[in-house]
Amino acid sequence: MNGLPNNATIVEVGSRDGFQNLPDFIPTDVKIKSIEKIIESGVKDVEVTSFVNPKAVPQMADASEVASAIIGKYGNRPGMRFIALIPNARGAESAVKCGITTVSIVISASESHNKANVNRTVSESLAALRDIAESFPSLAVRLDIATALGCPFEGKVPEKDVLSLVANALDIGVREIVLCDTIGVADPLSVDSLTRAALKEVGGHCPIALHLHDTRGMGVANTYAGMLNGIEKFEASIGGLGGCPFAPGAAGNTATEDVLNMLTCMGVETGIDMGRYMEALRYVQANIKSDLTSHMAKVVV
Amino acid sequence: MNGLPNNATIVEVGSRDGFQNLPDFIPTDVKIKSIEKIIESGVKDVEVTSFVNPKAVPQMADASEVASAIIGKYGNRPGMRFIALIPNARGAESAVKCGITTVSIVISASESHNKANVNRTVSESLAALRDIAESFPSLAVRLDIATALGCPFEGKVPEKDVLSLVANALDIGVREIVLCDTIGVADPLSVDSLTRAALKEVGGHCPIALHLHDTRGMGVANTYAGMLNGIEKFEASIGGLGGCPFAPGAAGNTATEDVLNMLTCMGVETGIDMGRYMEALRYVQANIKSDLTSHMAKVVV
Repeated sequence: MNGLPNNATIVEVGSRDGFQNLPDFIPTDVKIKSIEKIIESGVKDVEVTSFVNPKAVPQMADASEVASAIIGKYGNRPGMRFIALIPNARGAESAVKCGITTVSIVISASESHNKANVNRTVSESLAALRDIAESFPSLAVRLDIATALGCPFEGKVPEKDVLSLVANALDIGVREIVLCDTIGVADPLSVDSLTRAALKEVGGHCPIALHLHDTRGMGVANTYAGMLNGIEKFEASIGGLGGCPFAPGAAGNTATEDVLNMLTCMGVETGIDMGRYMEALRYVQANIKSDLTSHMAKVVV
Repeated sequence: MNGLPNNATIVEVGSRDGFQNLPDFIPTDVKIKSIEKIIESGVKDVEVTSFVNPKAVPQMADASEVASAIIGKYGNRPGMRFIALIPNARGAESAVKCGITTVSIVISASESHNKANVNRTVSESLAALRDIAESFPSLAVRLDIATALGCPFEGKVPEKDVLSLVANALDIGVREIVLCDTIGVADPLSVDSLTRAALKEVGGHCPIALHLHDTRGMGVANTYAGMLNGIEKFEASIGGLGGCPFAPGAAGNTATEDVLNMLTCMGVETGIDMGRYMEALRYVQANIKSDLTSHMAKVVV
């Protein structure tokens, strides 16, 4: 009636994208406890960790331990989806060993960003994605399309380049496609346009999710713009952690509690209890990072 | 084509609502210089000051000096609208003496807030509004409807109470009606619903503007929701100053630069140059308040 979906899914990425971007090593038990509190609030979709080279990303050196602990505790809870980011087949192997059944792989829509990020062309990355999907048929593979709404090197990214990745991903058989506003330059109109085109491209054969940043204060507005087109899945990070904010104090990832609050206010069902999520936030504030960029972290006292 | 208006007007209220809420007296020349820089960026609608009792609001004790200086300098610039907030006929007299031709009067949609704010019933406030409109026929009177989207004492405010004020304001002949989210609890759906109803109520006979707060991170999203219904006027405050944020570090008024950036990104014409507006912001940051809540203040380095 109001054009919005009745239900929405929040995919918590604070435990991966958020933690990964913090300079000081977060003790493994604090990581686990944070995720437990997030799950206890009702979150069912969690990007738990990433299986990357611990020399390149020391923060994620405890990936197996964290994933095993969380899956050990909540693996039997109905409807849970434990996601891990993986860069390659080796990461996929490690993820499978811990009981992970869903993995995210990042490919940028812009060549220069993909080169800078993973030192591959987009074609090479797509070939690697296909290899992983074929080699690990038990894994549900998600594709995160980075720079889908703007690139730090190339500026505006042509929609056709994003849609070409979407088409390839469909062909490979990925289970979810995430359009990422990697540097926080999307506006409601660009989100409206790209989500409309992407939904048309997948034709109902694959869910489209959004990963939005609040760098310029449009993360929540862009969420709303996506919802008006029927997007129902949103990645967000507790406290707004992570997302490579490039200026001190600037926001990065859109904060889960800001998105959750809007959804709750609008009567969109998420299965997450706002009050209990704020308890998870207080734990993160007290044990990981106190100066968070999110609005709700500051206003709820 | 995209459902948005081609043009939008930003009404800068930082110089009134923003400054008024700051505890330390801002030197008169700093107030004037800030407004000059805002106007030089292309802003044409400025709430310059308020003509209130200086004992109650010492920050606004220099109202006449500020208004006279700005109108003296820019009074002949085409399209300018210099607005002052006034609480009563005495304020209107002072405003007229300085050359102000547009005044804002605040009435709350909820009885308890109106009582707390001006110690009058809503009916008494409406009678006073009518008196002023009749006594000062040369003045364009605007009505700011406070708590239109939520009240700190009563919670959700029935739309019919807001629409009743709108109908009364039309009857009195006000020139603009501003729906204010005084405590920052509006969400895109409540803005959608109220603006739709208010636009229907005025039937094109009076412009409807929005005054939104970013307290819970929805200020920009709510701006977009209003625009989708055809709202073209938005009050906003430089740096997000003011708006009574009730927790340290929490946001109050939606920041002009955050709204302006979204409009600029979306190609909506405002007549304001983003780069020059950021110069005004840097002046305010350096001379009035350095720890601003706005997103653009933090990200543009």
